[in-house]
Amino acid sequence: MPELRKDPIVGRWVIMATERGKRPSEYLLHPKEDEIDPSKDPFAEGNEHLTPPEIYADRPLHSKPNTPGWNVRVVPNRFPALRVEGDLDKEGIGIYDRMNGIGAHEVIIETPNSNARLEQLPVEKIAGVLEAYKVRMTDLLRDTRFRYILIFKNHGRDAGASLPHAHSQLIATPVTPNHVREKLEGAKHYFEYKDRSIFEDILRQELREGTRLVYENSAFVAFCPFASRFPFEVTIMPRRQSADFHQIREDEKMLLAETLKITLQKLAKALNYPQYNYILHTAPARRPRQGYWMTIDMDYRWHIEILPRLTLIAGFEVGSGFFINPTPPEDAAKYLREIVV
Amino acid sequence: MPELRKDPIVGRWVIMATERGKRPSEYLLHPKEDEIDPSKDPFAEGNEHLTPPEIYADRPLHSKPNTPGWNVRVVPNRFPALRVEGDLDKEGIGIYDRMNGIGAHEVIIETPNSNARLEQLPVEKIAGVLEAYKVRMTDLLRDTRFRYILIFKNHGRDAGASLPHAHSQLIATPVTPNHVREKLEGAKHYFEYKDRSIFEDILRQELREGTRLVYENSAFVAFCPFASRFPFEVTIMPRRQSADFHQIREDEKMLLAETLKITLQKLAKALNYPQYNYILHTAPARRPRQGYWMTIDMDYRWHIEILPRLTLIAGFEVGSGFFINPTPPEDAAKYLREIVV
Repeated sequence: MPELRKDPIVGRWVIMATERGKRPSEYLLHPKEDEIDPSKDPFAEGNEHLTPPEIYADRPLHSKPNTPGWNVRVVPNRFPALRVEGDLDKEGIGIYDRMNGIGAHEVIIETPNSNARLEQLPVEKIAGVLEAYKVRMTDLLRDTRFRYILIFKNHGRDAGASLPHAHSQLIATPVTPNHVREKLEGAKHYFEYKDRSIFEDILRQELREGTRLVYENSAFVAFCPFASRFPFEVTIMPRRQSADFHQIREDEKMLLAETLKITLQKLAKALNYPQYNYILHTAPARRPRQGYWMTIDMDYRWHIEILPRLTLIAGFEVGSGFFINPTPPEDAAKYLREIVV
Repeated sequence: MPELRKDPIVGRWVIMATERGKRPSEYLLHPKEDEIDPSKDPFAEGNEHLTPPEIYADRPLHSKPNTPGWNVRVVPNRFPALRVEGDLDKEGIGIYDRMNGIGAHEVIIETPNSNARLEQLPVEKIAGVLEAYKVRMTDLLRDTRFRYILIFKNHGRDAGASLPHAHSQLIATPVTPNHVREKLEGAKHYFEYKDRSIFEDILRQELREGTRLVYENSAFVAFCPFASRFPFEVTIMPRRQSADFHQIREDEKMLLAETLKITLQKLAKALNYPQYNYILHTAPARRPRQGYWMTIDMDYRWHIEILPRLTLIAGFEVGSGFFINPTPPEDAAKYLREIVV
């Protein structure tokens, strides 16, 4: 019997086609990507001149910017969706609202190696990528025009990556994205009603039931969410209550890098290197610590959503916000737990 | 300068990359689909035995069900996402909510011809497809377990169509889909504040400005919405206030068929037969005509969203609900208006 499951934070229903119970081998298996020729790769070491000048790099002290020798490099997106210069000029046009597309759009190049995948890097190098996220987020939060800093990764062409070299993206926007707002409001509503964080309640229940767990260490828990929209979807959540990713501690950064590495390795092994997206959900910037957002440090918790792209997003999903997932999270988590990496 | 635009109903912001202003020729042009071999096509005339028995058909009086001679045929989906038999058995599991996946999942075969596209059919035949929508919706609304009847069409493999023969789908669900709920709530909120329907206000502004209009007749207006998520997105809205699609009148049905035909023909010609989804947004079933839903017949209006799938849905979109649209609706509408069909 198929099942309908409700996301406890945003109230979104998902159709869990439990009867089909698709195994990893039943998904279209993607061939391994072609080798990238480093000489033609604008993100490769030695080709620093092919990108706009770097905004940040993890490189040896006293080494020159935009030269080889770096581990992680952040550059402006050459084709930015938003522009960093200018005023918002918010205005109404009849019943409609618009503003100038002010924002930042940056690329985080995760490795100088054209053909390394994020999960193949040593834990310390992955922690370096997380540090780049943190540094850029902290810097951009100073700009009073920005309301939200969205960090995400597209891996694979069908998942939206225009270049195959391992990279993430950052978009700073002057508005809070819809899905973020829904999560914030759901979390706040729950807190008002229960006087507890829904994220803490989810974590407790996942740890107690154990059937959806993928991996855990002393600071993070990776699990397939109860109302997963996508087969093999994984959420990584910190054990410590914290609304803002950029307040991650040094020890947590290493443990998050480890969790990310192991989870992505398990997904790669189980699903033959699937295309995927991940999204870092953090709290909005510029929130007054009073009034509406007063409880956010108690009710909201940052987390990462990993979304393997094994199924198509069809009219049903786009039009209704309803997803059909042919692999229940309990089955997905069991496969992923059993994968040895 | 790129622009941020807000959907007036659901409050979703879209990044309009006005500077890029992509022309139709700049989108990946899809080759015309391969010819379908009717002998292998389960939806073709003569192959009625290859589908589950028909639920409804537009066929001559006294002709036998499941035999040739029909214009439109509705059959159960062979691989239904939801099952029609059983009770909902709603229950909580700790903080989570689930229910049995009860619902209907039907396929509306739009033509007996394997290789005809919906917009190639004569207006009367398209009206026959709309009649099938109406009949099935009216019938399923009698089932007290169903809260919403979602009708949609996936055209093209990347848009989620598993078979190329022209067809739409119907899913009756025991819950209201998230995006539908957001629209209903946005419309209700606007009505409470302004004492006017937001749909009427949108229509008035579109007709007054004219820059986003694609086509209009005496009963319907087709336009590219102000905050289009997708390039060449088109909304078709009735001029007459009505929350429920299934209350469409005979004369309106013909005029909707004409609007749909012309709009889809324009899209096909402008974009070389793009893959697309369309979704029929109607009001939920089983609503008491009092309390919360009391004003729905005044505040909500059914409509159709046509979503050409020319861009990928990447991590940014899935994670944030934020869309980047490289073709402003004014440009798209201008192209579509100028296409002669």
